[in-house]
Amino acid sequence: MTQPLALGIDIGGTNTAFGIVDEEGNIVEQGSMPTKGFATINLYLKALKKELSPLLKKAGKDNILGIGIGAPLANHYTGEIDNATNLEWHGVIPICKLVSDMLQLPAWLTNDANAAALGEMRYGSAKGMKDFIMLTLGTGLGSGIVANGQLIYGHDSFAGEMGHITAVREGGRECSCGRYGCLEQYASATGIALTAEKWLNVRTDESVLRRHKGMITGRIVTEAARGGDALALEIFDYTAIILGQVLADAVAMTSPEAFVFFGGLAKAGDILLNPAKKYMEQNLLHVYKNKVKLLLSSLPDADAAILGAAALVWHHGAPPQEVEE
Amino acid sequence: MTQPLALGIDIGGTNTAFGIVDEEGNIVEQGSMPTKGFATINLYLKALKKELSPLLKKAGKDNILGIGIGAPLANHYTGEIDNATNLEWHGVIPICKLVSDMLQLPAWLTNDANAAALGEMRYGSAKGMKDFIMLTLGTGLGSGIVANGQLIYGHDSFAGEMGHITAVREGGRECSCGRYGCLEQYASATGIALTAEKWLNVRTDESVLRRHKGMITGRIVTEAARGGDALALEIFDYTAIILGQVLADAVAMTSPEAFVFFGGLAKAGDILLNPAKKYMEQNLLHVYKNKVKLLLSSLPDADAAILGAAALVWHHGAPPQEVEE
Repeated sequence: MTQPLALGIDIGGTNTAFGIVDEEGNIVEQGSMPTKGFATINLYLKALKKELSPLLKKAGKDNILGIGIGAPLANHYTGEIDNATNLEWHGVIPICKLVSDMLQLPAWLTNDANAAALGEMRYGSAKGMKDFIMLTLGTGLGSGIVANGQLIYGHDSFAGEMGHITAVREGGRECSCGRYGCLEQYASATGIALTAEKWLNVRTDESVLRRHKGMITGRIVTEAARGGDALALEIFDYTAIILGQVLADAVAMTSPEAFVFFGGLAKAGDILLNPAKKYMEQNLLHVYKNKVKLLLSSLPDADAAILGAAALVWHHGAPPQEVEE
Repeated sequence: MTQPLALGIDIGGTNTAFGIVDEEGNIVEQGSMPTKGFATINLYLKALKKELSPLLKKAGKDNILGIGIGAPLANHYTGEIDNATNLEWHGVIPICKLVSDMLQLPAWLTNDANAAALGEMRYGSAKGMKDFIMLTLGTGLGSGIVANGQLIYGHDSFAGEMGHITAVREGGRECSCGRYGCLEQYASATGIALTAEKWLNVRTDESVLRRHKGMITGRIVTEAARGGDALALEIFDYTAIILGQVLADAVAMTSPEAFVFFGGLAKAGDILLNPAKKYMEQNLLHVYKNKVKLLLSSLPDADAAILGAAALVWHHGAPPQEVEE
């Protein structure tokens, strides 16, 4: 073996990205293919194998320690994807075993936000940290909680659903989960866009957001705020109040060194993080004040999912899915 | 060595309890002394040594693996007690090193609620669990969070302050920490007594609690509820609503197998736990429903603190305070 490598596979709702990564986070081979359009998991896997084979050959299969897979609704303990609504194959998919058997390599599975946390811990903003919380602010809000240098999976592998902490108890927005007031209905790209749409209906301020009414996205609110639009900035402040309160409560549980932000809404950078930090500090118990950092991911957008999945090979914290010959 | 033993020392505000414990949780020697009344830490330690020496001799000092110390505001990483307001010695006390040097044994330190968690994991209701949350409902609300079989200390050793999660955002009660709406202002022996006092001022219902107005304790509310007093039962229901909401949010973070309850208010048993379970379930994200147990501590009141401190010797998760000759 010349240098140890890991194969990272990120199975998203639309695309599957994969790459072969070394210990320092250099992606030596990479590629992608659609996730959609395969009637069965077997057809998908056949296509995946065809894509991966030349990469594995080039990198030298003997150098590859194992496979890390990031996927929605992934169960780390069983290696299964369980009824992920944004994938076409329903029911329980033993993806870890299927990929492991197909490529004859040990494989581990985790969900996207947990993979992101591992990627940041090994290669990104959380390098060297043993206690931090990853927050991915995209369509929803995903989280991966690291304590004592390990991901917290909980007894059922489903720990870290901070998007579904009840952030607003009175009159909270209905969530796709069927509950009300979930954090992701406010502090996500979708959430902040929804805030903007609602505010435009009841506010009379001038705002560049009015031009986009009915079609507002998180990016549009971010651009408006960046341009100094007062209403957009106020929307970020409102979002930060809600986010900051939940961050303070999370600190009272696991006392992280930092929160690391990734995803569409995180691109707002200081426009979100500065007020979120202010409101978190206002809500923190004294012993935690002025200790907890709010950081942006330092991984390139295009590579983060692959790096996160690959990091799982080095930080799996569990025996691999066994290879059956 | 005939059988490995641990010395557990629980330093409370009023009393210090200590005991020598075997791997199965049998206390082979034990005793106690006042914590108060010693002008300096050195005088306290001298008295402690005098108490411990005959016990160590009887149990055979060579059998003792180390010392676990439970204390308020304990920093596990530094081995220091930092300005504990309910102890007479102010400033930073390097208690771990002092005790370790004095007895020539490795020593570890943690706070009371964390020690309680370790005690339950090794000897009590959480035996065999790797993911659970300990809640001690006494004067305040203490918590110890266990994930992957380890206590979560966080980056600064102060993780697990769930008593200071903001449970009530609008019009929350002022807490001793200076903030408002903290969980411990509601879900603790003190908190439920406060609820009763407040309710008696605005409610006109008949209730046995009226007899105790101005002097209500958690125990009095519990006794009244046990006797079927409608107002007392309603107070427990109100307490359980607030507690259940926070439990559900905590599940969304660390997904524990169980919450284990200890302390004065926990003695209410099902009167508290049944409604708390009901409201937790109502607030849980679907993936967590009907999975999380609410359990009472199974350790005897008088021994729990000693067992918890002793358990630290087997579950310290950190190098000991080194012994200096």
